[in-house]
Amino acid sequence: MSVTAVPGFAAGGLASGIKPSGAPDLAMVATVDHAPVAAAGVFTTNLVAAAPVQISRRHLVDGRAAAVILNSGNANAATGDQGRADARRMCELTAHAIGGATTDVLVCQTGLIGIPMPMDPVEAGIPKLGAQLSADGAGGVAAADALLTTDTVRKVTVQRADLGGVTSTIGGMAKGAAMLAPAMATMLAVLTTDAVVEPSALQRLLQHAVDDSFNALVVDACRSTNDTVLVLANGRAGNPVVTLDGGPAFHALGDALAAACADLAHQMAADAEGATKLVTLVVLGARSRAEAQLAARTVASSQLVQCSLYGKDPYWGRIISELGVSGAHFDPEQVTIAYDGIVVCEHGIAAPHDAAAVARVMEQREIAITCDLHNGNGEATMLFTDLTHAYVDENMGTS
Amino acid sequence: MSVTAVPGFAAGGLASGIKPSGAPDLAMVATVDHAPVAAAGVFTTNLVAAAPVQISRRHLVDGRAAAVILNSGNANAATGDQGRADARRMCELTAHAIGGATTDVLVCQTGLIGIPMPMDPVEAGIPKLGAQLSADGAGGVAAADALLTTDTVRKVTVQRADLGGVTSTIGGMAKGAAMLAPAMATMLAVLTTDAVVEPSALQRLLQHAVDDSFNALVVDACRSTNDTVLVLANGRAGNPVVTLDGGPAFHALGDALAAACADLAHQMAADAEGATKLVTLVVLGARSRAEAQLAARTVASSQLVQCSLYGKDPYWGRIISELGVSGAHFDPEQVTIAYDGIVVCEHGIAAPHDAAAVARVMEQREIAITCDLHNGNGEATMLFTDLTHAYVDENMGTS
Repeated sequence: MSVTAVPGFAAGGLASGIKPSGAPDLAMVATVDHAPVAAAGVFTTNLVAAAPVQISRRHLVDGRAAAVILNSGNANAATGDQGRADARRMCELTAHAIGGATTDVLVCQTGLIGIPMPMDPVEAGIPKLGAQLSADGAGGVAAADALLTTDTVRKVTVQRADLGGVTSTIGGMAKGAAMLAPAMATMLAVLTTDAVVEPSALQRLLQHAVDDSFNALVVDACRSTNDTVLVLANGRAGNPVVTLDGGPAFHALGDALAAACADLAHQMAADAEGATKLVTLVVLGARSRAEAQLAARTVASSQLVQCSLYGKDPYWGRIISELGVSGAHFDPEQVTIAYDGIVVCEHGIAAPHDAAAVARVMEQREIAITCDLHNGNGEATMLFTDLTHAYVDENMGTS
Repeated sequence: MSVTAVPGFAAGGLASGIKPSGAPDLAMVATVDHAPVAAAGVFTTNLVAAAPVQISRRHLVDGRAAAVILNSGNANAATGDQGRADARRMCELTAHAIGGATTDVLVCQTGLIGIPMPMDPVEAGIPKLGAQLSADGAGGVAAADALLTTDTVRKVTVQRADLGGVTSTIGGMAKGAAMLAPAMATMLAVLTTDAVVEPSALQRLLQHAVDDSFNALVVDACRSTNDTVLVLANGRAGNPVVTLDGGPAFHALGDALAAACADLAHQMAADAEGATKLVTLVVLGARSRAEAQLAARTVASSQLVQCSLYGKDPYWGRIISELGVSGAHFDPEQVTIAYDGIVVCEHGIAAPHDAAAVARVMEQREIAITCDLHNGNGEATMLFTDLTHAYVDENMGTS
């Protein structure tokens, strides 16, 4: 399980004292020999990028990294020059702890925005953590646990890929409790693999994997100041090198990375503890994939749609109205909407249906909603949850 | 008060039986002589436009109208051919009731989407209502009351304009309870005036007035399937005709129309009964007015920002994060954010401030938040409310 499922990686986690609660808040992942390996990253598109995002982007310019240092309890975002110095210092401490170069260390942070990073805990904690990294399962679990904020469960994944007859492993960990706790809505994920892969191919595959997983979660994913997904590939599997050639191994590694990200994203959505519904929304028949994504995101982000689901009300009128403002082009009088396959709207108007069957669907925790625009082949899927009293409770305050 | 404050207009309202509760649900406004006069309208931009929107657009092509028929209790949206026939029939019934042409009648409807319009109540109600229109205040009040859905108070306005030495009056009524009840979030407004004005000039002035008022409300305003703002100008004031020339009278009438719309929009925002905060958000220093609007709308629409306000938490980190994803361009390390003039963020980082004073601001019902991007002269204002438990309660179900 987790990032240490892949040979050649060690990890660990501990409570450094950033969190007043005393919960684990510091995690590290590193190559066992502390040598830099191929690495790639996808970062938030928010113009207000946190200090760790700015520093990690710089350290990834060469497509190589030896370690990742992560903390929860403080986002180190909107912290200016001091924030950048603090994030850089965390990389430096990590490099010293494991033996290596500061620029080969990446950094991820999550917590409240706008509060200076408390550096005493990490000055003491990073050297201690570097000395207790473990390549067995316990290390990976400890690292995954130290990432958690309002998450209620650890999020880890292991996937396999057949790369030209050689089996490669992908391990991963993530934090992010969908919808419920966007006070700390940052989504962080670190993946490891033993595949032999060129950094450029790794970057391309990671971006695709993120687009189809974390970016299809309505959590403000990839919009917070700190969102980061990283992958380190140490090449121990010994497969023929995966390049941008688009061959079978390129696709096999891509599929496995996508499966790892999708698994972690689903775990995030399922961990929205205040949520009572987990909805898989499919928009199809759009003019293009981009329009399908636009339509799906608009419906999934709607407070009204989310409240209807909480109330177990199959009010498709709100869904068709949101489709209409999404910017996607279609004929409103061609739209079909179905709850778990039961068509409630056809040709844009109410369709006769078994109301009792729909009522049973609305009692389920997981519901599939399909909207067919009948205007092309564009298709997109979005995972989202309902808007509940617990959501409001969680997000009323930061303390 | 209301639409009958203007000489030459009559109005009325009654309970026709569309609403099972027996509350008033049918309203009419008409010229006292039933002759068509200059008219203009601004309609929802939603691709899924309700039947009354489709019919009214057609009937307004000539820039003239004699009456408006309105109902609450059913939106007649997503109802296809039958819906259009029903909306047209309501215009026909109104034309018969007051004596006139069907195409000189405009129609507005609000309520649930996707449910066929019950026509028996209006077949009986419209003739009855046409016979009891009144040009005094009681008629205007009865019409305004029949529009209300989840609104808790009647929304009416009266404004004056000096048009070349002649005083003209503008009267208006509206429905729409901001944020709280978007189950029926449709925003409807009907304005009357005795100004002499060309239809083209009236249309231009109404569009401007709506942009600065209803469209600056975060209520999904002008995005529901039925949103409509109409104005009828009967020319009784006898002023020199207002044209598109851009002269003083053009601006004076425009200012008065804008004041009428702004007054009604503020009444809508203030009527968000479940809301505990009414926030006036000003974004300034953007590269353009369009970018300022984008930034303001993004912040005001944020569930996280709205929840913070409900919790009286001055968490500016969420505000700067939303600015960052808005699409507006700026340097994050130049941003200033203030609550009622108290600067809490300067140069994009926490600013020393009087925390007790900010805490007092957060106790207020009305709060002004200012975000200066320091990147130009673009400025925009948005009115919004907080996200509360009552909002979730109201929107869980349609029954």
